[in-house]
This record gives sequence, C-alpha cells and structure tokens, in this order.
Amino acid sequence: MSAAAAGRRPGKVDTRGQIIDAAKRVFAAKGYDGASLRAVAREADVDPALVHHYFDGKASLFVAAMALPFDPRAVPVHEHPDRSTSAGTMVITGFLTMWDHAEGTGSSFASCVAGMAASTSVADAMREFVAERVWERSPVIQGESEGQTRQRRALVASQLMGLAFIRYILRVPPISTTTPEEIARWAGPTLDRYMAGPID
Amino acid sequence: MSAAAAGRRPGKVDTRGQIIDAAKRVFAAKGYDGASLRAVAREADVDPALVHHYFDGKASLFVAAMALPFDPRAVPVHEHPDRSTSAGTMVITGFLTMWDHAEGTGSSFASCVAGMAASTSVADAMREFVAERVWERSPVIQGESEGQTRQRRALVASQLMGLAFIRYILRVPPISTTTPEEIARWAGPTLDRYMAGPID
Repeated sequence: MSAAAAGRRPGKVDTRGQIIDAAKRVFAAKGYDGASLRAVAREADVDPALVHHYFDGKASLFVAAMALPFDPRAVPVHEHPDRSTSAGTMVITGFLTMWDHAEGTGSSFASCVAGMAASTSVADAMREFVAERVWERSPVIQGESEGQTRQRRALVASQLMGLAFIRYILRVPPISTTTPEEIARWAGPTLDRYMAGPID
Repeated sequence: MSAAAAGRRPGKVDTRGQIIDAAKRVFAAKGYDGASLRAVAREADVDPALVHHYFDGKASLFVAAMALPFDPRAVPVHEHPDRSTSAGTMVITGFLTMWDHAEGTGSSFASCVAGMAASTSVADAMREFVAERVWERSPVIQGESEGQTRQRRALVASQLMGLAFIRYILRVPPISTTTPEEIARWAGPTLDRYMAGPID
C-alpha cells in the first residue's frame, strides 16, 4: 500500500500480486472485453512490459485474477479419442476433474461463484471471457442459425455449472461424493443432446 | 442494537427483523436440522411465543432468513394437468417463474447463491432444508434403491440450479432473455430423464 505511493516500481517480490489486484479492479470496472493490459499496468502503477513479463496475455491475467483453476480452452470440447466416449461425457469429466484439482489450492468453484454472485460486473466479465475462450472456438452445426448455436451453448453451460454447484457448494450426494467419470456417465447424454441433438 | 441490551422486548416494530437476524445466525451455526424455534427465540432474546406469532414454523422462518422467494413445497413436482406437458417441463417453469417474480423484491437468486458460496454452513442448512421440504416429499420410483432415488434428485437439482445460474447470474442469452416456458421446453426432457428415465 505505502509502496504504491512511491510511483512505478521495478519487479519486486509482490509485483505479480499487485498486478493481479489491479486486474481484478479493471475487469470489474470495464468487463473482460473492455479491459486492456495497458489499463491494468496503469492501475497497478507498473510498466506495461512488466505485465507482459508475468502474464501471457489478457486471458491468463483474467484466469489469475479470478483464481480460475485453468484456462477453459484446456477443456476438451469436441474430441472423441474412442467411440465409447461421447463428447458430452468428455466435457463433463474434463470440467469436473479440473475443478476437483483446484479445490484446496486457493482457487475453488465456491470462491469463483461468490465473486460472480456478489457483483454483476464480475459475472459480466466472466461471461465475456467464456464467450471468447470457449464459445467462439466451439464447433458450430452446419446450417444452424446463430440463435440456435447460442441456445446450445447456454444449455451446455447450465448443466456444467449446475453439476459443479451441486458438487462443490450444495454438496449433495452422490454428485458430491462420486467421481467425475461417474457423473459424466449420468449427465453425458444431456450434454450430447444440448450440443448436437434436437433441442426445440 | 442498543435496544437488545434492554432484555426481552414486547412486539415492537422491528421484532420480526430481530428474529430473522437471529435465525440467520442459528441456521448458520446449527444447520437446518439442528436449529429450533426455541434456540432462535433465545438468540433473538424474545419469548418463543413471539417467534410462533410471526412465523408458521421452522421452514417459514428459514424461507425468511434466506430471503427465499417461496417455500419450495409450492413448486409442482409431479403434476400433469394435461398430457401435453411433461413433469420436467412443469418443474422448470414453476421454479424459474418463482425466481423471476422474486427478482427485485429483495430476494434474488444471486443473493441466495452468494450466501451459500460464502459459507459452507449456510449451504449445509440449505441442503437440509431442501431435503426436508422437497426430496422427502417427492415421489419415488417403485423398486428403485435409495441410492438411485438420491441420484435422481441430485441430477434434477443440478439442472435446475444451473438454469437459474445461467439466467440470473451469468445472464447468458437466450436463457437470460426468454420465458420460463421456453426454457422448460428445451430442458424439460433432461428433467424427465433424471426424474423417471434411464440414468445409469
């Protein structure tokens, strides 16, 4: 705090944390799309080069600021390594496995949700982030309208967020007690339909 | 605050609020099952008869303490007024319609979720409340094990909470912009399967 008054600092021990704190404020104020690394550097009172030194880009800075356990691009969206596993099953397994690993490491689903529930602007930034990192890179079904594509994505998000909510926050057995693979087996057909089946 | 030091009070204007505040602390400390109207009266420093005067029982006190928009018993769980509407469709429509009406009246899905995400004990109390008010009164499929019944209920809860999360917190169109009836049409088959279809 008092160090901040001293103006631009070189790369001290807490510079990364300082940048993350500044990023939280900037993302909350401007959303994900409206934020820039330059604005974060200004808010943190550091040289923009330092932000680039610590973070790979805006997405990785957002992941750090929101304490996300992973960049959602890492979640397999449409890969079928073998025919026995559906796309929906894979997505659920990947999503829950990553949050499982995150629990207890300082990033948790509950803290992420608490941030979104407490602040509309944090939720807005998260939606924009997911739109850029997940939805814009997801496959589209040939011949479908943009509206139908958006509908599929919102439905997929609803089932994924709901499973995580029941597993990590409300902690309802057996969803809170079994493996991601087992949950994926139960809810996989739902995601398969939302992603590629009849939804209207 | 200063009035509290004066000991037991008659039914003043803020007595109801005082009881609600006390109830929040008691539910958080003891969970839903462990809390009693007597303990809430003691915490609020009022006569137990006053708690009974203002509240119909433990469930209605919990609904008030958590600022829930409704007693979940009011959600139709298994009614088919006509053959054209499935049970899943009805549950989703009822659930979202009630939260829709709640938004902007001081109780909102976001504030309810924020409470659960911030405190494990609040989430525990909510789960116990739902277990008593919804799950224990829901129909059971003949011949199924208790484990299968619990699995169905957790899956139903996951899709309902997820839809509300996407509608009210992340606000992803079209789920955030269309009617409960339309969402129920898309996700109804999911709930139908979770409630009565093959899930394993």
